Amino acid sequence: MFKINENYLKLPGSYLFSNIAKKVAAYKEANPDKEVISLGIGDVTQPLAPAVIDALHKAVDEMANAETFKGYAPDLGYSFLREAIQKYDFEERGVKIDTDEIFISDGAKSDSGNMGDIFGKDNIIAVCDPVYPVYVDANVMDGRTGTYDKDTEQWSDVVYMPCTKENGFVPELPEKTPDIIYICSPNNPTGTAMTKDQLQKWVDYANEKGSVIIFDAAYEAYISEEDVPHSIYECDGAKTCAIEIRSFSKNAGFTGTRLGYTVVPKELESNGTSVNALWARRHGTKFNGAPYIIQRAGEAVYSEEGRAQTKEQVAYYMENARIIVEGLKEAGFKVSGAVNSPYAWLETPDGMTSWEFFDYLLENANIVGTPGSGFGPSGEGYFRLTAFGSRENTLKAVERIKALKK
Amino acid sequence: MFKINENYLKLPGSYLFSNIAKKVAAYKEANPDKEVISLGIGDVTQPLAPAVIDALHKAVDEMANAETFKGYAPDLGYSFLREAIQKYDFEERGVKIDTDEIFISDGAKSDSGNMGDIFGKDNIIAVCDPVYPVYVDANVMDGRTGTYDKDTEQWSDVVYMPCTKENGFVPELPEKTPDIIYICSPNNPTGTAMTKDQLQKWVDYANEKGSVIIFDAAYEAYISEEDVPHSIYECDGAKTCAIEIRSFSKNAGFTGTRLGYTVVPKELESNGTSVNALWARRHGTKFNGAPYIIQRAGEAVYSEEGRAQTKEQVAYYMENARIIVEGLKEAGFKVSGAVNSPYAWLETPDGMTSWEFFDYLLENANIVGTPGSGFGPSGEGYFRLTAFGSRENTLKAVERIKALKK
Repeated sequence: MFKINENYLKLPGSYLFSNIAKKVAAYKEANPDKEVISLGIGDVTQPLAPAVIDALHKAVDEMANAETFKGYAPDLGYSFLREAIQKYDFEERGVKIDTDEIFISDGAKSDSGNMGDIFGKDNIIAVCDPVYPVYVDANVMDGRTGTYDKDTEQWSDVVYMPCTKENGFVPELPEKTPDIIYICSPNNPTGTAMTKDQLQKWVDYANEKGSVIIFDAAYEAYISEEDVPHSIYECDGAKTCAIEIRSFSKNAGFTGTRLGYTVVPKELESNGTSVNALWARRHGTKFNGAPYIIQRAGEAVYSEEGRAQTKEQVAYYMENARIIVEGLKEAGFKVSGAVNSPYAWLETPDGMTSWEFFDYLLENANIVGTPGSGFGPSGEGYFRLTAFGSRENTLKAVERIKALKK
Repeated sequence: MFKINENYLKLPGSYLFSNIAKKVAAYKEANPDKEVISLGIGDVTQPLAPAVIDALHKAVDEMANAETFKGYAPDLGYSFLREAIQKYDFEERGVKIDTDEIFISDGAKSDSGNMGDIFGKDNIIAVCDPVYPVYVDANVMDGRTGTYDKDTEQWSDVVYMPCTKENGFVPELPEKTPDIIYICSPNNPTGTAMTKDQLQKWVDYANEKGSVIIFDAAYEAYISEEDVPHSIYECDGAKTCAIEIRSFSKNAGFTGTRLGYTVVPKELESNGTSVNALWARRHGTKFNGAPYIIQRAGEAVYSEEGRAQTKEQVAYYMENARIIVEGLKEAGFKVSGAVNSPYAWLETPDGMTSWEFFDYLLENANIVGTPGSGFGPSGEGYFRLTAFGSRENTLKAVERIKALKK
């Protein structure tokens, strides 16, 4: 009899957002007259920028003629896109990345999920707590996490780095040395971003210990403060210890358009083996490139118009973030994040658990958010609201939350 | 120190098509006046069908307005596409597949590469020899193949099923029982397709032994003979033993547009565990859907115009196949395949090895094909030519091959 990957059976329950969707669907069915506003899942709502739309139409027309038609893409992605990334995401910030260190993909979720493929099973991983669930779930599937304890909601072999108000939501160096360290900054879900000094400390630690950092920079476009790095490679020595994952989902609204990339520096080695070469081999064997027309759309994000238009989109969401934070503070909530990220992270009031507050908010204000405990035990007592809604819904939601307190 | 996946180090050399590309580039540099025609890599050359182009433009316009903009797609893919697949790929052939058994992806290569993720490491895999390299390479990465023997070019733990002229290029039931059996029909590279009776034998065998068949039906659209099944589910009992992988690359020219799907029946179980549920979990954790606009393009392939137009494209390539086969036979070559597939499989003349014939054809006729030995040891002495070129190039190539023999 063929055998399944038994690690899958260890995964507890189903995905956080499916549970939320079920609760919301049940509430809506029972209360068809209520207008429910979601500030839950981190999905964008603004349309693609005009420069991106133009590029898409143009690329579609190219696919209609034999002379300009495109078949299989180059393994790493088209040069036009990798060169734009090299220039605008790195060179402009004083970072030199070669184009063959940039791997175009269908998104940061695939890359962060698949990344474990090139690493051995016997690495110890470290994650922030709370954390984006994909990092841990993918490692469970790969067999790296040990056994699950239902009471602590933790895996025996995972190093957890609590991020709470006590440490300003920035992870501290762990006691046990991990091999693979996941860092997301600006952070999902806490909305806090590391300063360059804080991140440099992690880079130095990884180089000293021989660990690799998987740096998820999906929210980089939301950074507003000067001392927060946009790329981990702004830190000295990061090329010998860090992989960086980037996304077009949040800076250009590509959640449904699917495009991302990962940087694997050629200097990154494990006992003399180039990690870049391993990822190239995986990319060439288990992936066949992002669609040509989507790669052209990505290129347009870096055009003069594209940069101006996507900057405006980000500003739109950040104004939502400001409205949420100010409104919540006015209503007496304790809120952090949302300065260098689209996520506001609030403390649940009156000792409510995260899920109790979820129910309370859904039932009394018809607002959907995300329970902090869904991202890990240290998220208990917190709640995430996203700035990705429309302005109208954001304003309405804030008014409803304020009204709760009156 | 972090550890890499040591299995990657076992992979011999680089990918077949990179080697070909290098040889061709070197020849072109040394002979800049020669016009080289490629009938090598299986990439399409005809533009996307008008119905697909229209659907793409329409979907792009939807992405330009907040009211019709689409963010994250449903985990399994949009219903409009899964329902079209259900109806036209299965119901019309008398096969009932539920829409939650259909998983939309970015292509057959990703799905066949990632499929190993949900299976245990201790399964014995069986592959045809010659075979599409991705099946074996992906299993090497997963640690399922044992050690590589440079002399035999085989892996110690893989069951090889030779497909040669002696057995009509159809694999025979192996002596050692495999757990996971890869079958590609119509076959890449031999171009031979199994009849329903031949495939039924494999389905019965898999059910008897408790094996799972990973059935790659990427070339299904090229089937011209009545007794060749388009889906493995046309065979009795296939739902309890088979996963089917499909692609839009060859039936609709999506090699650069990227879309595919995989069917995992709910009846398929390993000791009571639903394989469908495992694949759903992988899909939800390590993938974030194919782009909305591409899924709309896929839907258009099933529209009345789309079906007529893509049928015409397939007929165009199959006319190329006919021209290649007739021309080669006229020139005295022994050729098979190319009746239910776009691949002609010829015996190399005068005892040449596959690579010797590659060099001979490149140097004397300026034609690029694919050496059979690149697909496995039993491919030695064979050579693959594809029908995916333009009519003009195909005719020219055949004339040049004929001229060689004069």
